[in-house]
Amino acid sequence: MYRLREEKVFKDPVHQSIYVQEATIWKLINTAEFQRLRRIRQLGTSYLTFHGAEHSRFSHSLGVYDITRRIISQFERNGYQDWPQEEKMVSLCASLLHDVGHGPFSHAIEQVFDTDHEEWSCAIILGDTEINQVLKEVSEDFPQQVAAVICKNYDKPIVVSLVSSQMDADRMDYLLRDAYFTGVNYGTFDLDRILRVLRPYRGRIVVKESGMHAVEDYLMSRYQMYWQIYFHPVTRSSDIVLRQIFMRARELYREGYAFKFLLPPLAQLLNGTIGLRDYLALDEAMVQTAFGQWSDEEDDILADLCKRFLNRRLYKYVPLEGYHETLEAKLRQAWEEIGLHPDYHLQMDTPTNLPYDVYKPGSPDPEPKEKTPVLVLDDKDRLTEISLKSDIVRSIAGLHTGKYYIYYPEDLVLPHIDRLKPEIRELLGL
Amino acid sequence: MYRLREEKVFKDPVHQSIYVQEATIWKLINTAEFQRLRRIRQLGTSYLTFHGAEHSRFSHSLGVYDITRRIISQFERNGYQDWPQEEKMVSLCASLLHDVGHGPFSHAIEQVFDTDHEEWSCAIILGDTEINQVLKEVSEDFPQQVAAVICKNYDKPIVVSLVSSQMDADRMDYLLRDAYFTGVNYGTFDLDRILRVLRPYRGRIVVKESGMHAVEDYLMSRYQMYWQIYFHPVTRSSDIVLRQIFMRARELYREGYAFKFLLPPLAQLLNGTIGLRDYLALDEAMVQTAFGQWSDEEDDILADLCKRFLNRRLYKYVPLEGYHETLEAKLRQAWEEIGLHPDYHLQMDTPTNLPYDVYKPGSPDPEPKEKTPVLVLDDKDRLTEISLKSDIVRSIAGLHTGKYYIYYPEDLVLPHIDRLKPEIRELLGL
Amino acid sequence: MYRLREEKVFKDPVHQSIYVQEATIWKLINTAEFQRLRRIRQLGTSYLTFHGAEHSRFSHSLGVYDITRRIISQFERNGYQDWPQEEKMVSLCASLLHDVGHGPFSHAIEQVFDTDHEEWSCAIILGDTEINQVLKEVSEDFPQQVAAVICKNYDKPIVVSLVSSQMDADRMDYLLRDAYFTGVNYGTFDLDRILRVLRPYRGRIVVKESGMHAVEDYLMSRYQMYWQIYFHPVTRSSDIVLRQIFMRARELYREGYAFKFLLPPLAQLLNGTIGLRDYLALDEAMVQTAFGQWSDEEDDILADLCKRFLNRRLYKYVPLEGYHETLEAKLRQAWEEIGLHPDYHLQMDTPTNLPYDVYKPGSPDPEPKEKTPVLVLDDKDRLTEISLKSDIVRSIAGLHTGKYYIYYPEDLVLPHIDRLKPEIRELLGL
Amino acid sequence: MYRLREEKVFKDPVHQSIYVQEATIWKLINTAEFQRLRRIRQLGTSYLTFHGAEHSRFSHSLGVYDITRRIISQFERNGYQDWPQEEKMVSLCASLLHDVGHGPFSHAIEQVFDTDHEEWSCAIILGDTEINQVLKEVSEDFPQQVAAVICKNYDKPIVVSLVSSQMDADRMDYLLRDAYFTGVNYGTFDLDRILRVLRPYRGRIVVKESGMHAVEDYLMSRYQMYWQIYFHPVTRSSDIVLRQIFMRARELYREGYAFKFLLPPLAQLLNGTIGLRDYLALDEAMVQTAFGQWSDEEDDILADLCKRFLNRRLYKYVPLEGYHETLEAKLRQAWEEIGLHPDYHLQMDTPTNLPYDVYKPGSPDPEPKEKTPVLVLDDKDRLTEISLKSDIVRSIAGLHTGKYYIYYPEDLVLPHIDRLKPEIRELLGL
Repeated sequence: MYRLREEKVFKDPVHQSIYVQEATIWKLINTAEFQRLRRIRQLGTSYLTFHGAEHSRFSHSLGVYDITRRIISQFERNGYQDWPQEEKMVSLCASLLHDVGHGPFSHAIEQVFDTDHEEWSCAIILGDTEINQVLKEVSEDFPQQVAAVICKNYDKPIVVSLVSSQMDADRMDYLLRDAYFTGVNYGTFDLDRILRVLRPYRGRIVVKESGMHAVEDYLMSRYQMYWQIYFHPVTRSSDIVLRQIFMRARELYREGYAFKFLLPPLAQLLNGTIGLRDYLALDEAMVQTAFGQWSDEEDDILADLCKRFLNRRLYKYVPLEGYHETLEAKLRQAWEEIGLHPDYHLQMDTPTNLPYDVYKPGSPDPEPKEKTPVLVLDDKDRLTEISLKSDIVRSIAGLHTGKYYIYYPEDLVLPHIDRLKPEIRELLGL
Repeated sequence: MYRLREEKVFKDPVHQSIYVQEATIWKLINTAEFQRLRRIRQLGTSYLTFHGAEHSRFSHSLGVYDITRRIISQFERNGYQDWPQEEKMVSLCASLLHDVGHGPFSHAIEQVFDTDHEEWSCAIILGDTEINQVLKEVSEDFPQQVAAVICKNYDKPIVVSLVSSQMDADRMDYLLRDAYFTGVNYGTFDLDRILRVLRPYRGRIVVKESGMHAVEDYLMSRYQMYWQIYFHPVTRSSDIVLRQIFMRARELYREGYAFKFLLPPLAQLLNGTIGLRDYLALDEAMVQTAFGQWSDEEDDILADLCKRFLNRRLYKYVPLEGYHETLEAKLRQAWEEIGLHPDYHLQMDTPTNLPYDVYKPGSPDPEPKEKTPVLVLDDKDRLTEISLKSDIVRSIAGLHTGKYYIYYPEDLVLPHIDRLKPEIRELLGL
Repeated sequence: MYRLREEKVFKDPVHQSIYVQEATIWKLINTAEFQRLRRIRQLGTSYLTFHGAEHSRFSHSLGVYDITRRIISQFERNGYQDWPQEEKMVSLCASLLHDVGHGPFSHAIEQVFDTDHEEWSCAIILGDTEINQVLKEVSEDFPQQVAAVICKNYDKPIVVSLVSSQMDADRMDYLLRDAYFTGVNYGTFDLDRILRVLRPYRGRIVVKESGMHAVEDYLMSRYQMYWQIYFHPVTRSSDIVLRQIFMRARELYREGYAFKFLLPPLAQLLNGTIGLRDYLALDEAMVQTAFGQWSDEEDDILADLCKRFLNRRLYKYVPLEGYHETLEAKLRQAWEEIGLHPDYHLQMDTPTNLPYDVYKPGSPDPEPKEKTPVLVLDDKDRLTEISLKSDIVRSIAGLHTGKYYIYYPEDLVLPHIDRLKPEIRELLGL
Repeated sequence: MYRLREEKVFKDPVHQSIYVQEATIWKLINTAEFQRLRRIRQLGTSYLTFHGAEHSRFSHSLGVYDITRRIISQFERNGYQDWPQEEKMVSLCASLLHDVGHGPFSHAIEQVFDTDHEEWSCAIILGDTEINQVLKEVSEDFPQQVAAVICKNYDKPIVVSLVSSQMDADRMDYLLRDAYFTGVNYGTFDLDRILRVLRPYRGRIVVKESGMHAVEDYLMSRYQMYWQIYFHPVTRSSDIVLRQIFMRARELYREGYAFKFLLPPLAQLLNGTIGLRDYLALDEAMVQTAFGQWSDEEDDILADLCKRFLNRRLYKYVPLEGYHETLEAKLRQAWEEIGLHPDYHLQMDTPTNLPYDVYKPGSPDPEPKEKTPVLVLDDKDRLTEISLKSDIVRSIAGLHTGKYYIYYPEDLVLPHIDRLKPEIRELLGL
């Protein structure tokens, strides 16, 4: 019924070939909403640190779909009883669409405007969209099912665990893909091996004990990718400049500032009233075009921030031994004395700001506790949380606590350097 | 004098690490005009065929610089007398900047608006730009020297040959890079080996005979990349849609159509009066933003074309046995009969339209003759054009002549299929 | 019946993982005769030219099995009617065992002693061996079937074509494997793509037209591997030294020379009476051990040749413009004048000696005509021999004719250089 | 003086190209003693577990030389004062020759016969060998200098640290090479990056702080390679069979057993009197040939062990929860009861037998203390042992303690299974 007459093949640099056999998947890929992901980078502003990281959420989404397809195919080939075969289609669709709600430079926009890409994904799946149309062809309630998987309240937890858990297809694809495009080799692990040792087991995806070392290697890769790539201080700097652009623009908008250039989706974003249709019109092209136009705005702070972002004149970063409120207060005061803006020209970055997603097994604290731990299945059918078996996993869990940094525009401070106290200059590394 | 205190390193997926040792190079990379290359894709619309091909001209330009640096370093290490050591700086700058004049979707824009990216490169180097400022710090006439290399009228032909010839750093980088990002392995050849066998010799860069097989492999890669990637019929289709958007917009502009959205650089582009400052403001973000806005224009043809491009609803292609004017005339007439536009809804693609750049050795014709043939230096210091020595090179030179294709919007034709003559339907594969 | 309870996995550097699901395959791998392939190098003496080429026929045989398995699995997955499903087992066994008859440094031994590894393969399969035992467990005549496939007289030509033809699993594995271990990148082609475009069609394996470029790339790789690796003049030199050792030993043996060291299998080899059991005891360890012992034999020529081989003091090679009998006669005479042996200290290598295996399509000559041409299947179900469609294939077919070389021990000639005529010295490059 | 007219290039799969510029290095490579390394596998019996691991110590030695050359070249390029430039030649020679004393299946032979490959390396360098001749051409005491570096008593500790320390060229090459040939990707780390962050500093090689993460990754690779490859239980099994062959042969030799086949070097090895000339004649070809011949010896135990080794019928392994002497005593008794040999048919493998070489920083115990810790140099010129800075290094140091295993020939036990107590059967997993 949904089978394509001839399978479609995408040439993919990470997985070599991505196969599409179902008509529904093929149609979903060809919707306007899915094609829009081509205009949204997978790694946000990371391309300003690693110039190869220009890949889009489009290719990542295809990759997640492909890994999910391979996992299910392995389950089917081995005839595992614990895998509910009728869940294949909803799993494939959810894996393909899980990121469809991402906006331009998602993390920054989510932080400033308090939006949530998963909610948008569900809104797109359930709203008046081409995607919704395609899913409805499967069955009337199929869109709801797919959305439920993405929002993690689907009634078959094994499907949710395939799409979002510590060993999900999403993480496996992004580690390999981001490593490939940045050009580092931290992110490489043995995907084939991992796919081979996954098992459906009583409503979860677990790992055969013989594959434990491959999982260690995967978790280690993830650890390294976080600290080497995702939290790279230069990328934090470009994220900060980006957030400050949005904060300044919103502030000006609220003050009634007359922007020379402001397309409706952006106005609504600043306004906090953006709807589905306009959200879908937002992409990184529009944001960058706005930044280009805002580089000529009369508001100096906004114009300066936009030029910094486009021309990569980012904020300098200086590591701190630790953070004290008094220290920040002193800096803000010094900034005011030399005529800089203490909000827009200064940013303290603390480790708690990091979107930390490293595996945290069996933590005693209630909060950061892992909801989807990696479970190891031994040959006597016993399940054990991996950190109880693996010294390495235990040792990397939660060990890195991140550093404190000050970010500021060095070029704006330098002319006033004589007016800064020695204590402040030392702090700034000047 | 121009040496950085500490060398800078870019992590590059193709060359692993790209080193910058000269302050001038570092400053050039940080100019607004060079950073702009991050917003211009290396392969134009190819990402619509190969989803990995989202890399920018920024990373390619760094790669060309790096290969040039390695070639010169090899020449210096071996102490070759025929290499004029004082030309290092101008060679490095020209290699870094050779593509700086590219606009968004260059090939399409060049075809429609008859611009030339090399001229723009020189205009940027010689005009009122940050790049010009940095180059002038070297010497007052240094911008002219760099521009002369790019425009191929520099008085040391060996420098020109390093930056543009059949074995130049430009081609070597793009083959490897485009292969890496599309994920095919046609483009891989042994760069290390080739760099090792290049020699400066009497005002040219030549190849030691022992490296001939590596050169064969490189030319073969190029041949395959042209036919598998650069001339892929789907990419031709997206290029055609793109060109038609620009042609339609220009036509409407000339007719005085009131665009709802038109930023000054685009207006001037349509107008044919674009100047340096506005050209630099043009990037793919602005073009895509315009296409997004134009998707709601009242002109149906323009709106339809823009939606096609953004949502990847490209024109179907059908190969032809050959091309005849009468055949095109018949199709145009059929188009008019069913209410389609014979210019915008139909395109014949002939091999002579292809930007064919495959090595054409020793052709008897005066015109397509290779200006910068690959010369092989044997151990008795004799130079021979490579195709005289290599059966492979001879055999691939000029052998592929391309195919004829019809491109058209299948979805617009299908509703009228009953009104088409059988002969036309067969031609269209319907 | 033959299914393993749990599939076995071999970690393979070329194919990542090699899966074994059938008990028969697993048992065959564990026979003494198959394990013996670990002691026979895949590329004979090539490791003396490319030090990485130390891989054995054992790993190649596993690779051929794996590619065959993947081809059949693709045929089954697509439900092609033209593939006889009951032939899977015989195909897998024949692909695994096709090289089991290779002896140490096969090509040299076959040339000197006029043996044939395919005949030995069949003898091993049909004789009193562990392999024969395992195959008989399938059915009484199963060994005959497997042997028939290897000897190319099996009554289902499609099975023979899977195991030996221009696009067989054997060639695909060895190109990729030999490229991997030598470290060159000539041999890389897109195996996944090729496996995807193969089709069983009326008793043959053919190629879908859409995969023609992948096949071109594969044939081009093969062409480059032949000329860069397999026919490398240094490898020819080590092969020559090796052959001369065997020829000298045989001559001495026939003369009744009393070898200090001579194990029975070697004696029988020299004797021309070697039987199955002794042939299986012959491996490269035994040959190298003999050479080590023979380095101390009293016969100077034999001792010198053995030391040359073990210590890699090979013969020098000098390319010739062409070959004339008079030229060889003059050299032989010169050799005798300076006290060198005209047989053992001189070798003319002519292109017709090369085990040339490059694709030779549609040759007009009856002899070198391709028995198993690559056939391309278009979308109208027409078959065309590939060289009629592909300019590249046509151009590389038979184009390289090889060079003539003189091989000789330079160190033995140098002391007598004054006694050589200028004409001879020029010829020898001295 | 020692410069080659034209540099020599080895094609290497791991390092792409290995360059030789010095005549001395070139001559050393061409000595009989160095060429002998081609007949000794880098990973001993590991090829019986990972079939790709057939590479020799020859290629590893070239790789170590090349990494050393690149480190020194980086030091020279950056003009570091702390690098004594006159030590280049001795460093290169020592790095090339550091493994020249390895015998066939070194680790097993060293354990059984209590020899030491470093001592043999020095004996070869100082004895009557071609290597000694070549080194003496540099200066009369140059062989002593090279030997001193290898035996770690050279008076410039920085040279020793280049050739043997926690970050030496030896380890870097073998991790990358062994990962390449086995086909796993645990062993990959960013060599370029590591080479770039090494600094000579006050008589040591230290690491710039900015490279700390690359070092973490390298140590992590090493950790994984040890547990996944070097200590793989199947490889332990083949090592055990090998050792038992040698032990049985020695026992028989001492008892005056009349071997049908015994070449002098082997006799002297069993005898404990082997000298330099015979040691150099020992290679894996000779050992395997002996095993082949001994497969027909009258001593059943020796013949059985040899057949097991050649045909890969290894001992089964069963993990134990822990080791107790009483447990071993019980097993030995059970063995005797069923007529098996408690020494040759049983082996307990305890973690303390492992040649453990994982980085052990700042251990409080005096003994396993790291003699050559990795020191990190920060931008204030302070040195810190890496585990004090890196959570990861601290966490992997000494954490894995290995497992206890029983090894035994399952096929010899199975016929007597009814006579074994249930307790013993459970222990054996039968």
